Amino acid sequence: MPNITVELLSGRTMDQRREFVSAVTEAAVGILKARKESVRIVFQEIEKSDVANGGLLESDK
Amino acid sequence: MPNITVELLSGRTMDQRREFVSAVTEAAVGILKARKESVRIVFQEIEKSDVANGGLLESDK
Amino acid sequence: MPNITVELLSGRTMDQRREFVSAVTEAAVGILKARKESVRIVFQEIEKSDVANGGLLESDK
Amino acid sequence: MPNITVELLSGRTMDQRREFVSAVTEAAVGILKARKESVRIVFQEIEKSDVANGGLLESDK
Amino acid sequence: MPNITVELLSGRTMDQRREFVSAVTEAAVGILKARKESVRIVFQEIEKSDVANGGLLESDK
Amino acid sequence: MPNITVELLSGRTMDQRREFVSAVTEAAVGILKARKESVRIVFQEIEKSDVANGGLLESDK
Repeated sequence: MPNITVELLSGRTMDQRREFVSAVTEAAVGILKARKESVRIVFQEIEKSDVANGGLLESDK
Repeated sequence: MPNITVELLSGRTMDQRREFVSAVTEAAVGILKARKESVRIVFQEIEKSDVANGGLLESDK
Repeated sequence: MPNITVELLSGRTMDQRREFVSAVTEAAVGILKARKESVRIVFQEIEKSDVANGGLLESDK
Repeated sequence: MPNITVELLSGRTMDQRREFVSAVTEAAVGILKARKESVRIVFQEIEKSDVANGGLLESDK
Repeated sequence: MPNITVELLSGRTMDQRREFVSAVTEAAVGILKARKESVRIVFQEIEKSDVANGGLLESDK
Repeated sequence: MPNITVELLSGRTMDQRREFVSAVTEAAVGILKARKESVRIVFQEIEKSDVANGGLLESDK
């Protein structure tokens, strides 16, 4: 704990994931006082055709 | 807000998504008094082999 | 199916929920061709201190 | 109800899913007193590159 | 892993939770070949006024 | 986007939330190249009696 889910559009590189995971884990440890080995992060990639804002699919914008 | 997640079996067309997104957004604005641009909808497609009801996978029915 | 989760700020009345549930279920049946009895909707109320946009908690805005 | 989501690494066979679904449904009925036909289980497979523990992606370990 | 979320109506006792957690963990270890210490289960209690099936809130049935 | 959900044990202060939200948003902007105003973070507090690891509720440890 914490258990962090990151819903994001596809297209990020593995290096971006690595850097982001490292930064968020560090923040959880430093600020929330989590134990490092307990910080869990899951990425859920979604496509533009899977998400709508304001009544329109992102793939239609 | 609201942030709406729609878990559904695969097989819907893009036009069905468009219509559904439009209807749900309208309901959120008209009934829940949400601001239109704040209504977010995400589709999560699942396969019949990913879901079970009553102890049986849907793909086995 | 579909299984729909509606994350929203607290403060809606039961009548707003009833109307919204009715409208969304109708849209799922009419547009997505779901069976009415299979449409499931869950509300998850959240507080302004539980959500941040743009780096600021909503309760601090 | 209950509505159970199982986030797991890919690689399980269909027979493992069948057995697991059967065991969990039986536990929900026997222990939680759920009606069998109301027990819903959804599998969400994730890849090792989608999950990090302790600041490192599982695919980098 | 697996990371299991159990959405259920409120009203279960702590002993029911204990028994259910034990049974599901055992099934994950025995059937899915998970390591016991990696099986994580989270309960999310919901009220009847938070869930609708077939267009009606459960609290209105 | 990204839409980030942080499941954590209760007990963090508002200042810890503020600092964490700020750090994670900065990481999303700097590393994932998200637009700042599109970064959404939701906290879901859970109690020790709601989570089990290794077959035991955290409240029983």
